[in-house]
Amino acid sequence: MGKHLTSRSEDFAKWYNELVIKSGLADHSGVRGCMVIKPYGWAIWEKMQSILDKKFKATGHQNAYFPLLIPKSYFNKEAQHVKGFAKEVAVVTHYRLKHDPKTNEIIVDPDAKLEEELIIRPTSETIIWSTYKNWIQSYRDLPLLINQWANVVRWEMRPRLFLRTTEFFWQEGHTAHATEQEAIEEAKLILGIYTDFLQDYVGISVSTGIKTDSEKFAGAINTYTLESVMQDGKALQLGTSHFLGQNFAKAFDVQYSNKEGKLEYVWATSWGVTTRMIGAMIMSHSDDDGLILPPLLAPIQVVIVPIYKDDETHSRINEKAEQIIKELEALDISVKYDNEDGQSPGWKFAEYELKGVPIRIAIGPKDLENREVEIARRDTKEKKNYPNTDIGNVIKDLLDEIQKKIFNSSKSFQQESTHEVDKFDDFKSLLNDKGGFISAHWDGTAETEEKIKNETKATIRYIPFNGKEEEGTCIYSGKKSKRRVIFAQAY
Amino acid sequence: MGKHLTSRSEDFAKWYNELVIKSGLADHSGVRGCMVIKPYGWAIWEKMQSILDKKFKATGHQNAYFPLLIPKSYFNKEAQHVKGFAKEVAVVTHYRLKHDPKTNEIIVDPDAKLEEELIIRPTSETIIWSTYKNWIQSYRDLPLLINQWANVVRWEMRPRLFLRTTEFFWQEGHTAHATEQEAIEEAKLILGIYTDFLQDYVGISVSTGIKTDSEKFAGAINTYTLESVMQDGKALQLGTSHFLGQNFAKAFDVQYSNKEGKLEYVWATSWGVTTRMIGAMIMSHSDDDGLILPPLLAPIQVVIVPIYKDDETHSRINEKAEQIIKELEALDISVKYDNEDGQSPGWKFAEYELKGVPIRIAIGPKDLENREVEIARRDTKEKKNYPNTDIGNVIKDLLDEIQKKIFNSSKSFQQESTHEVDKFDDFKSLLNDKGGFISAHWDGTAETEEKIKNETKATIRYIPFNGKEEEGTCIYSGKKSKRRVIFAQAY
Repeated sequence: MGKHLTSRSEDFAKWYNELVIKSGLADHSGVRGCMVIKPYGWAIWEKMQSILDKKFKATGHQNAYFPLLIPKSYFNKEAQHVKGFAKEVAVVTHYRLKHDPKTNEIIVDPDAKLEEELIIRPTSETIIWSTYKNWIQSYRDLPLLINQWANVVRWEMRPRLFLRTTEFFWQEGHTAHATEQEAIEEAKLILGIYTDFLQDYVGISVSTGIKTDSEKFAGAINTYTLESVMQDGKALQLGTSHFLGQNFAKAFDVQYSNKEGKLEYVWATSWGVTTRMIGAMIMSHSDDDGLILPPLLAPIQVVIVPIYKDDETHSRINEKAEQIIKELEALDISVKYDNEDGQSPGWKFAEYELKGVPIRIAIGPKDLENREVEIARRDTKEKKNYPNTDIGNVIKDLLDEIQKKIFNSSKSFQQESTHEVDKFDDFKSLLNDKGGFISAHWDGTAETEEKIKNETKATIRYIPFNGKEEEGTCIYSGKKSKRRVIFAQAY
Repeated sequence: MGKHLTSRSEDFAKWYNELVIKSGLADHSGVRGCMVIKPYGWAIWEKMQSILDKKFKATGHQNAYFPLLIPKSYFNKEAQHVKGFAKEVAVVTHYRLKHDPKTNEIIVDPDAKLEEELIIRPTSETIIWSTYKNWIQSYRDLPLLINQWANVVRWEMRPRLFLRTTEFFWQEGHTAHATEQEAIEEAKLILGIYTDFLQDYVGISVSTGIKTDSEKFAGAINTYTLESVMQDGKALQLGTSHFLGQNFAKAFDVQYSNKEGKLEYVWATSWGVTTRMIGAMIMSHSDDDGLILPPLLAPIQVVIVPIYKDDETHSRINEKAEQIIKELEALDISVKYDNEDGQSPGWKFAEYELKGVPIRIAIGPKDLENREVEIARRDTKEKKNYPNTDIGNVIKDLLDEIQKKIFNSSKSFQQESTHEVDKFDDFKSLLNDKGGFISAHWDGTAETEEKIKNETKATIRYIPFNGKEEEGTCIYSGKKSKRRVIFAQAY
């Protein structure tokens, strides 16, 4: 069967792009770098949002909303932040169009030039901290735990669906605390929420650690990161949580009076995950026949396909299907009965494989006779007949099993894709060969980091949190090193 | 008590603005015309979204997402649409900032000018119909029932919190149908969903009808509208649903092959409601002491305030409160126990009146003695003691009653605010006096409509759907008229 995707081994990037489009997740738009997220893709994002939102609220965070447009001058206030973010951004310079009688076209009205340009937010620290100045006066106002779900724009020269788009969706948390310790704990709490979400729901095994100074967020003291290896051996950053110290509090003069009535600058964090997680999910689990979706995020968890030649069989199958649908819906399992008559069962099988529906139930005349149904798993492609009674619980267990299996496969793959390397030649040949995470000694200088990057395109993805102390020599400079860090070529 | 709001009779606009800010719903931002929606306000919008979203999905609609940025040329494609929307919009002309070594400031990089300017969507018909061209080929692809939740930007010269902001939130539905009849039915189905939502949840009595040609959506054949009178006698448009005919299908060349294999243009609708509904809710129900929120949208439905002098009483009240909280939460009623010790009970009473919490429970030493609690309604300010057993069901019934009462008050007010008028002098004096809806004869010409608007600032809000046929003469021109229409001064 198959829907003729390019295979992963042939061209991974092409496979990915075709899969996103053919499975109906998203599409290119008429605006370079911006995608249309189709209903099937958006339904996955809605599930992601809903799960994460509950986790944020359960840990005391509240949602709010800050403006899309930020005055250019705000970016000047935090010295590091401006270097990182005042770059590839969308700049609004005018606020009116008008009809040009000469050309009969609409043109930008030259009289409607803004005094100060506005930037479409690439991230919201500046506009949020300019607001927090008014919200925070006393220790009673702290901690301030705010999140927003929003679209952001960062001009992308080499866009890729979900992974790197000029406009993308994310949540961005921005918190303010009375003490340094509390802010660090917040940043780590969020890292834990992200880890659980990615592993338990998206089914991706992630590694966490600290970014080097060259790779950290512009304006942060420390950036904690979540990273994973995709099927092509390249690493992908899945989310970050930043401890910002007092940088933004000082830039925007946000002080609170403590219990003794003394003014102090507040401590801050910010953190975010994006629609890129959908890209990661695709690249981690899917195969040459299509998507493999983790059941907890699949818009359709079960599809039922009838197989019949005559009307009498068809109506008996309809009856059986209705019964199964009721059973599944009572268990909160989302099910689609594809009873369209324009396509063959074989075509439908391939279509739902492409779309990654975790379980397919087929019902034909022989199944009716034997009081059975055929159940096929998308992940393993195993097919098995089950008695057509108590299907609900069979499916429920199977969905749990598939969810676990997908995560376990990801976990094994991450382990197999991580290698300790001690020679730079091995380092380079491993990168050329299968990629993955490379655990190696580094002398701790930005200079060496830069040289390795220039020679191999590999960057330091993270410094492990609890990496064991180990005497060694830097893989590049030969200088002394006390611990290994994780290198990889990354998206 | 009171939080010193300007009274409604003194200055309604000032009262409104103070109330929005002091109750913690929203705030002005550093960007002119753009507001910050604070957690208390955003929680109301989340509830609105969640209820409407369920209603849309229950009627077969799916969510998707289309780009924020629209190429300028797209606006040229539909002749009427361009006149209406290619005006006060935010125009992106550049895609990069850079550091200027001369001034040590960041500036817009002159080398990063876009070939074609991009417009931040003021509404998405053009980008969506340019996409539908690829999605619709056959009658099997219809109807296409899509909604998106999004931020939009329309440059506002006279912004007002929630009512008219440069950036605002809405949902915009965009549907495509095989027949004219089906599209008209869709537009009316949505009008019904909006009506039910506004009346049953927001508690606002709305009137519906058709816009005149001068007032309809730019690009529509017919605009159906929902209108209501605010407490100051001015009308507010709460939402619109448009039957677009084949205008956008023709502009973007969207045809489908029907069952006979013949190509036909599709029929379209679009429809939306916005964060303005929050403004309407405030202006319909609230009083000089603060917000009055309908229980079904209130972020906090019940607040419990303890009154005590000694620790022993305090701990007994805590115990009682815990018990009530459990009871309420079991019934899915949201409750806050304000046990902060920095403020007096009186201060708290005024604070929750300001914030419009529908029910306040106070527990003091005497209440403990009598095994009672004091329950106060925000809407009527009635206070009454109840036995402190089975409080859950008492509160549940009371919340239902408050929800109904708020709507019934709104309904009576709409009726009292609607007047039939037959003389232009009466028309003008009524507008000067108490405003409201004025039902009057109109000769059906845009010319008369325009003259009345210029003389009185009153516009035709809608032509009633089932207005009875009635011979009359136009209130302005004296020409013959067959039915009354509804005039008002509007926001």
